[in-house]
Amino acid sequence: MKLYSYFRSSAAYRVRIALNIKGLSYDYAPIHLLRDGGEQLKPDYRALSPDGIVPTLIDGDHVINQSLAIIEYLEETHPEPALLPGTPADRAFIRAIALQVACEIHPLNNTRVLQYLTTEVKLDDAAKNAWYARWVESGLDALERRLERDPRVGTLCFGDSPTLADLCLVPQVFNARRFNVDVSRYPTIERVADYAATLDAFLRAAPAQQPDAE
Amino acid sequence: MKLYSYFRSSAAYRVRIALNIKGLSYDYAPIHLLRDGGEQLKPDYRALSPDGIVPTLIDGDHVINQSLAIIEYLEETHPEPALLPGTPADRAFIRAIALQVACEIHPLNNTRVLQYLTTEVKLDDAAKNAWYARWVESGLDALERRLERDPRVGTLCFGDSPTLADLCLVPQVFNARRFNVDVSRYPTIERVADYAATLDAFLRAAPAQQPDAE
Repeated sequence: MKLYSYFRSSAAYRVRIALNIKGLSYDYAPIHLLRDGGEQLKPDYRALSPDGIVPTLIDGDHVINQSLAIIEYLEETHPEPALLPGTPADRAFIRAIALQVACEIHPLNNTRVLQYLTTEVKLDDAAKNAWYARWVESGLDALERRLERDPRVGTLCFGDSPTLADLCLVPQVFNARRFNVDVSRYPTIERVADYAATLDAFLRAAPAQQPDAE
Repeated sequence: MKLYSYFRSSAAYRVRIALNIKGLSYDYAPIHLLRDGGEQLKPDYRALSPDGIVPTLIDGDHVINQSLAIIEYLEETHPEPALLPGTPADRAFIRAIALQVACEIHPLNNTRVLQYLTTEVKLDDAAKNAWYARWVESGLDALERRLERDPRVGTLCFGDSPTLADLCLVPQVFNARRFNVDVSRYPTIERVADYAATLDAFLRAAPAQQPDAE
């Protein structure tokens, strides 16, 4: 397998964790999101990813985009260890956490959106940081209320083994801290994300451990 | 089952189509996103949906948030007709289309984001429309390039039976037209979405057919 990735991309980070948990080796193909106008926008890469976003997974003849679609694919083709365990309702709980990060928080704060706010909307840094904080803080606040009251939460989002939920949460918390969000305001999230980040599969997927880390 | 919905919500629209395709009857609980400061933000509803967003599905004791998590749950509990047919790679193709809408287009243009741009960032209508167009058009453009070249596309996104991809595409096209985006620039999308919208399950899920339609 081959993964097109950028060390700091939250979405690529999710997939790197999944590949590590499944014990799958892969070639790392770096795509620099800022250099040279953004390598993700070059025709060669857009032939693989029409959106011009990372990650993209190549598995034999299959070209797979969208981090959550990639992880569901890995789950179907390499079921153990399960990233979506439990009953259908449990999996809905796990997927809802993942989607809360992937649909409500991350899309509003990724590189291209922040670039647009700077270059087109002409937001200054204070207004851009307020935008960032608005969506991360309301998103993490809602997630904290979901997690703090659910008996399925253990040392991780669902019991004590990593699931799709943790794969999305850890990169989001990493990203939030990079933008100086005070994650200690969300004690369940902080506890879970900080514990997950100590696990080997998460450690090896961390941005600083990637070949293209700066 | 009971579905908390708003007639114009794209995310609720996706789930309404899924319920219709699966032949599941449900009680419709309207949540007005604009009236009275937004009924979705009231404590009663936030006890069900910490984010304060629609839709939420109630199935017996289970409270399920996030439209794609709800649809995956319905797929697992009521497998026929399949909304995720084919091989793992086919399902990844279908999910990637759905996620391209749900993660790259819709989050940037939903009600609360447009409200924030108006009230906090003080964008005028022209700048807000430029923002809307920026993300819808680049998203639909990428999606068009994905669909136009893939032999799996038929009368619908994947062959000739509706899948999760169509469930996300039709509401997004509806929404784009409401904001005067010229969808004819994306001929595959327009052909697929317009055909899908003629199917009974889609017709009955349309915003104008809901009890809270205005």
